[in-house]
Amino acid sequence: MLRIAIINGPNLNLLGTREVDIYGGKSFDEFLTSLRQKYPDISFSYYQSNVEGELINRLQECNGTVDGIVFNGAGYTHTSVSIADAIAAISTPVLEVHISNIHAREEYRHHSLTSSKCVGSITGLGLIGYELAVNYFIETSAAKTS
Amino acid sequence: MLRIAIINGPNLNLLGTREVDIYGGKSFDEFLTSLRQKYPDISFSYYQSNVEGELINRLQECNGTVDGIVFNGAGYTHTSVSIADAIAAISTPVLEVHISNIHAREEYRHHSLTSSKCVGSITGLGLIGYELAVNYFIETSAAKTS
Amino acid sequence: MLRIAIINGPNLNLLGTREVDIYGGKSFDEFLTSLRQKYPDISFSYYQSNVEGELINRLQECNGTVDGIVFNGAGYTHTSVSIADAIAAISTPVLEVHISNIHAREEYRHHSLTSSKCVGSITGLGLIGYELAVNYFIETSAAKTS
Amino acid sequence: MLRIAIINGPNLNLLGTREVDIYGGKSFDEFLTSLRQKYPDISFSYYQSNVEGELINRLQECNGTVDGIVFNGAGYTHTSVSIADAIAAISTPVLEVHISNIHAREEYRHHSLTSSKCVGSITGLGLIGYELAVNYFIETSAAKTS
Amino acid sequence: MLRIAIINGPNLNLLGTREVDIYGGKSFDEFLTSLRQKYPDISFSYYQSNVEGELINRLQECNGTVDGIVFNGAGYTHTSVSIADAIAAISTPVLEVHISNIHAREEYRHHSLTSSKCVGSITGLGLIGYELAVNYFIETSAAKTS
Amino acid sequence: MLRIAIINGPNLNLLGTREVDIYGGKSFDEFLTSLRQKYPDISFSYYQSNVEGELINRLQECNGTVDGIVFNGAGYTHTSVSIADAIAAISTPVLEVHISNIHAREEYRHHSLTSSKCVGSITGLGLIGYELAVNYFIETSAAKTS
Amino acid sequence: MLRIAIINGPNLNLLGTREVDIYGGKSFDEFLTSLRQKYPDISFSYYQSNVEGELINRLQECNGTVDGIVFNGAGYTHTSVSIADAIAAISTPVLEVHISNIHAREEYRHHSLTSSKCVGSITGLGLIGYELAVNYFIETSAAKTS
Amino acid sequence: MLRIAIINGPNLNLLGTREVDIYGGKSFDEFLTSLRQKYPDISFSYYQSNVEGELINRLQECNGTVDGIVFNGAGYTHTSVSIADAIAAISTPVLEVHISNIHAREEYRHHSLTSSKCVGSITGLGLIGYELAVNYFIETSAAKTS
Amino acid sequence: MLRIAIINGPNLNLLGTREVDIYGGKSFDEFLTSLRQKYPDISFSYYQSNVEGELINRLQECNGTVDGIVFNGAGYTHTSVSIADAIAAISTPVLEVHISNIHAREEYRHHSLTSSKCVGSITGLGLIGYELAVNYFIETSAAKTS
Amino acid sequence: MLRIAIINGPNLNLLGTREVDIYGGKSFDEFLTSLRQKYPDISFSYYQSNVEGELINRLQECNGTVDGIVFNGAGYTHTSVSIADAIAAISTPVLEVHISNIHAREEYRHHSLTSSKCVGSITGLGLIGYELAVNYFIETSAAKTS
Amino acid sequence: MLRIAIINGPNLNLLGTREVDIYGGKSFDEFLTSLRQKYPDISFSYYQSNVEGELINRLQECNGTVDGIVFNGAGYTHTSVSIADAIAAISTPVLEVHISNIHAREEYRHHSLTSSKCVGSITGLGLIGYELAVNYFIETSAAKTS
Amino acid sequence: MLRIAIINGPNLNLLGTREVDIYGGKSFDEFLTSLRQKYPDISFSYYQSNVEGELINRLQECNGTVDGIVFNGAGYTHTSVSIADAIAAISTPVLEVHISNIHAREEYRHHSLTSSKCVGSITGLGLIGYELAVNYFIETSAAKTS
Repeated sequence: MLRIAIINGPNLNLLGTREVDIYGGKSFDEFLTSLRQKYPDISFSYYQSNVEGELINRLQECNGTVDGIVFNGAGYTHTSVSIADAIAAISTPVLEVHISNIHAREEYRHHSLTSSKCVGSITGLGLIGYELAVNYFIETSAAKTS
Repeated sequence: MLRIAIINGPNLNLLGTREVDIYGGKSFDEFLTSLRQKYPDISFSYYQSNVEGELINRLQECNGTVDGIVFNGAGYTHTSVSIADAIAAISTPVLEVHISNIHAREEYRHHSLTSSKCVGSITGLGLIGYELAVNYFIETSAAKTS
Repeated sequence: MLRIAIINGPNLNLLGTREVDIYGGKSFDEFLTSLRQKYPDISFSYYQSNVEGELINRLQECNGTVDGIVFNGAGYTHTSVSIADAIAAISTPVLEVHISNIHAREEYRHHSLTSSKCVGSITGLGLIGYELAVNYFIETSAAKTS
Repeated sequence: MLRIAIINGPNLNLLGTREVDIYGGKSFDEFLTSLRQKYPDISFSYYQSNVEGELINRLQECNGTVDGIVFNGAGYTHTSVSIADAIAAISTPVLEVHISNIHAREEYRHHSLTSSKCVGSITGLGLIGYELAVNYFIETSAAKTS
Repeated sequence: MLRIAIINGPNLNLLGTREVDIYGGKSFDEFLTSLRQKYPDISFSYYQSNVEGELINRLQECNGTVDGIVFNGAGYTHTSVSIADAIAAISTPVLEVHISNIHAREEYRHHSLTSSKCVGSITGLGLIGYELAVNYFIETSAAKTS
Repeated sequence: MLRIAIINGPNLNLLGTREVDIYGGKSFDEFLTSLRQKYPDISFSYYQSNVEGELINRLQECNGTVDGIVFNGAGYTHTSVSIADAIAAISTPVLEVHISNIHAREEYRHHSLTSSKCVGSITGLGLIGYELAVNYFIETSAAKTS
Repeated sequence: MLRIAIINGPNLNLLGTREVDIYGGKSFDEFLTSLRQKYPDISFSYYQSNVEGELINRLQECNGTVDGIVFNGAGYTHTSVSIADAIAAISTPVLEVHISNIHAREEYRHHSLTSSKCVGSITGLGLIGYELAVNYFIETSAAKTS
Repeated sequence: MLRIAIINGPNLNLLGTREVDIYGGKSFDEFLTSLRQKYPDISFSYYQSNVEGELINRLQECNGTVDGIVFNGAGYTHTSVSIADAIAAISTPVLEVHISNIHAREEYRHHSLTSSKCVGSITGLGLIGYELAVNYFIETSAAKTS
Repeated sequence: MLRIAIINGPNLNLLGTREVDIYGGKSFDEFLTSLRQKYPDISFSYYQSNVEGELINRLQECNGTVDGIVFNGAGYTHTSVSIADAIAAISTPVLEVHISNIHAREEYRHHSLTSSKCVGSITGLGLIGYELAVNYFIETSAAKTS
Repeated sequence: MLRIAIINGPNLNLLGTREVDIYGGKSFDEFLTSLRQKYPDISFSYYQSNVEGELINRLQECNGTVDGIVFNGAGYTHTSVSIADAIAAISTPVLEVHISNIHAREEYRHHSLTSSKCVGSITGLGLIGYELAVNYFIETSAAKTS
Repeated sequence: MLRIAIINGPNLNLLGTREVDIYGGKSFDEFLTSLRQKYPDISFSYYQSNVEGELINRLQECNGTVDGIVFNGAGYTHTSVSIADAIAAISTPVLEVHISNIHAREEYRHHSLTSSKCVGSITGLGLIGYELAVNYFIETSAAKTS
Repeated sequence: MLRIAIINGPNLNLLGTREVDIYGGKSFDEFLTSLRQKYPDISFSYYQSNVEGELINRLQECNGTVDGIVFNGAGYTHTSVSIADAIAAISTPVLEVHISNIHAREEYRHHSLTSSKCVGSITGLGLIGYELAVNYFIETSAAKTS
């Protein structure tokens, strides 16, 4: 059974009510429910925190206990060397997801400190991005076991 | 009754003992007591934390439960995209206050990531800046109700 | 009797008709009348010029003849070393005011040459900013005489 | 029937032989064959060119004649205002894909001129990225017709 | 009758004697006389000043009293936020003209603070640039009245 | 008979349908027809390409075979050293035209590599800019032959 | 008895397992045990956290309760104005230690925000750096008491 | 008889009272009197203004009517393209003088826009700098007439 | 028999007529004829194009079919990530040649995107540079076969 | 017997008399005497020069003839690629020492060209830094021989 | 008797033969002879070296043995932190002289590392600059003894 | 007889032993011997120094006494305005050679201060680069005498 951890960073707990034109009107809980229904064979864990260091804690805890991490660092994406260090320090692959197209927003959102330490990133595709990230781990998991 | 939240960022718990030539010799508690005495008709709440994410938590909690937020992000002012995101994510107006004149200090204090998301800022006027911020919310509250 | 000089820089004579969504629909004359009514015990002087050097002349003339200067350098805020020099050259305290939140506008408005030479600044609070500046001088004047 | 155009930029015709440690050992033709087999209900068109202007021609031709464009601008990603203009000029959504993690390579690959004009981007996931992009268009197409 | 104001900035009073290889040997007065002869149906006003603030005064006075402003800010083009603010503050269209090709001269002449607030600019075409600017207002005026 | 070549760069073939709020709703063909009618004594040639190198080819072909070139490099304006080199390499004068006011758009459109090699530029005046460019060549041609 | 606090920042809890080629294969606990054995006359306290604000809390708690602080801010070294402020706010001397040679790694590790507020720094000498830092406090303590 | 114009820019009218540790305690009038006494054979004219454009006016008026200009642009030194243009536009040699050592002060005082258009500059030597500038014109005048 | 491909980029077809003071008065055809006469044992192929993508095509075609490539990317040297990618993607060694000393010309010619992917470069030695490049391949070829 | 070379760069011969508030009042000779007394089993060599190239000569001479080099490049730290090259060219480990905290001084002292080529650096700890560097070589020497 | 040391940096030994349009046709020896004749009461010493460290040696030797140093660091002006450190380390005043107007030459000559440590600088006045520097020391010496 | 001086900068005396993967395993002496054998009709002189100023001395001595200078400034290439000045000051042509491809190494090696003053440069071709430089002088010498 594939184990996937989804870790969301600051302010993503407000999804569905916050700046709806940028982030959409669906809450992450609703999305997570539908994701679990669609992929019943996958074991999902979910964690959200506004605290940079708690996200690092969680990334470390996931190391070796899940098969893949879907990570949206939100605002910390652009400022956190420490989260980037945590991603580099663990061996479980981390795939970065952003709901909005960060390249079409403020200048300071164009540069990511964490991307270079992840296997890759999916940006601007709304909540679908999380599902595509899950698909990536399904594909690579299948490739390994085949 | 006007409800105002005052939120102070890192190291402001040391006020009165820390670098007295820059920040003055009065503790924030003393100041808060005199503020409450001077404005008995206002409901003040106060919060201080050194943790970036806890400041975000508090900003989110204040959303819709107070009429105005007086916020001094201290060092996070210059580095936190995530706090700026939190301010943008909530609808309660946030007014930024800095005790010292950050434009007359180190180069890296000249740029603020949070200011653009606040309604405005008051800088360099010592603890008086907090009181002026309170006055701003009194004025705009009066304008709305008149 | 507290003497306060208000000095406005370029294009602020157009207030009330100019870019109303940014600067509001009230003229400065109307505002000044209401300010004088609200603070009858303060002696206000008012000056506006579009000429950088005339603002310097006025700042110099105010030196020692008033107790505080409320200064909105408008566009010169971001380009004038000479006005900054004038503020540094005089001993009367200068408090910088900006009507709009300059940090939320064009990049070139984010940096101020004059702020570091002022006692502080109030930004983004509309015309209320001028009144708060007046309150600052009342507070500090009271502190001195008490 | 969903129509998807895949457009590949310079040097991607060498896939499978070129810098295998970065880009993998599979040719794009092999990949395309397997993609068509896996998604028999989708009409795929494929185009590759080393010429910036011909990529613009192709993007223009796809406008309104397909439902989604999967685009890998390769080296032009970082230098072409003209391709970015073409993406902005057409109404068919364009999703940017990069095989390698461009954020983990040379500094000049960290900035993209085209990303801000696309709906989003998928980076660093190898050829799987193209398939995820196809999935995105399937999802959004389903959402529209449901 | 079309009313056009021509406003020239610093050192343009020296035209014809100043750096003839860059600016040509004809004085602006000679040019203006020939312009009035060629376009007898247009009411031209002319103003030149070396003072930044007086150019702002003049731009403000022209607001609503002429149909178009042909403006050469000369050296202030590259340094004046305040003139840019004045152009933005008025509703009469302003067309920027430069006699020399500023992009082929010193680096600091390559960036213009005022251009973004004008309807457009004509650069490097000598005094003919002023005449083309006049033609622009004739064309747009004809379009409006037709 | 005055011979003028008009050369348009990438995406200008979409004029009239592309981003109408920026570029206007008239196609270049319509405009060209009216231009030829208005200036029957001028021999116009017209060329458009999305390919940088083909624009260079055309600029070279025009060298000595026309009296003036009206050139809109569009997106290549900001990125092409090679087109700038071509303009410098030929002796026929080139006048740069931009339909939109590039100084009021994205930061990367504020710098032009080609402008310094042209005789001058006309920016932001819509399709009228092309006509003014034609007028420039008429004027300078008249000056030479008079 | 000399009291020394060692404070380690984010991801240093992974020492010995994390990127062994950069950080070495010894855990910090092993090192600490040997340090305590070697310096039995010194009272060591140890603290590690991944949370920026908790590191600030700890630095504040150490103020006046220990004689010297050996601090490795790890990733926060390059991004935290708030930790730098805490170091400046307390009077107990702080000596910065880095295990790896940060100047030989990514560009963003070359600049430190905290170094200027510390008494000094020891970089690139592995875990020996911590011991040298302890020696520094022994030396300066001896100098004071002699 | 050698004719020398001394032109002083903004805030230099405050000399002797302004920031005495930087600019010294002597007024310019006192200095001028002693200068005239020491050099009775030289015809000195003196002008001071806080207005950028009036300094340009004066520089233009001095063109051809004096033999040398000693110019201290003060704050405009670092911001005025227009004064630099005026110096370039006139043929009378201009020698730049600064009382304080601008290279040892704020970063923005390290760059001069006007220096490149002057024959040279004398910086940091107090009021003696003006006298040395006069000596320069005496020397070069002697060289011409010998 | 040693096989060498010479590939010339944009505007080099104008050699001999274009900016003769920079590039010399000899056409490349003349030079090529003399080169073939001087080195009869070498098989030379020659290609010139103004189109970036066609240069990429040609570089790819030469891969494995010649022993060395002498490449002058001209203007694309400074702007083309895609050509740099092509050079990196092929295994045949590429030696960069520039006729003029690009380090003594415009600032934007000082940086090369392609140089780092070539074996080396020869700059500023006129057409002799091509011959030296040929000599390099003769030397290294001799070393391999000896 | 451990052999350690200490190499001091420019102006360090003035130690004890030069800027005593920054560098302290003890001469390096005094310090060296006490160091030799404290570590009688170590063979110290000492060299100081103001000449960049002589420091390179000395670094080369030490290669293989000592076990460790304690190097303070002083002003050359920030400007010398050549010394950095020398350190990289030799195999004997070099440990960089700075007496003052260079991160708390002028901006141009914050960047070091030599640090990345050394094993590490000790900064801001006064002359104690040299002793700690010696300790480092003792520790690593012990580790090798144990 | 006033003792003045003149120290000239690299390539100034070529004066009179080197780039005569920039540096003039007179050798420094000729100039020195005429200077000594004109100021017989001053004891001049002269030193020139192309070696940065030897200039530092000489500056140190002059400390306290002369009353003023006239220093032209030539190319080292823009690159030498070590010479700047030497000037700061000695107490004898140093006055910087440049023969040519460095602000009107290459960009890299516009910034000086040494100026901020000197009492002032004289730039662009040819060899007369040295004489003016001597006059400065005469004036300040007279002021001290009067 | 053609006279060629070869001048090598810092650390090139270590060639053959230093970082063999970058610089190769052959010493310069060996190379020089083979060069002299291959070109018996050329008079070679050779000089190497680690001292910047001694390289300047040597460049000056070669002026007019040789026909061409082959110069490898090594680390000084990127930092020495003074060597660049020396090259500009002499009339004998200087050809810059680098053994490694400096454009493929550290960022600070990508910019050369000396290249713009040389006739040209040969980079990345190992010791063959020196021979090609010699060939250049043979070719140009032949051209002059023919």
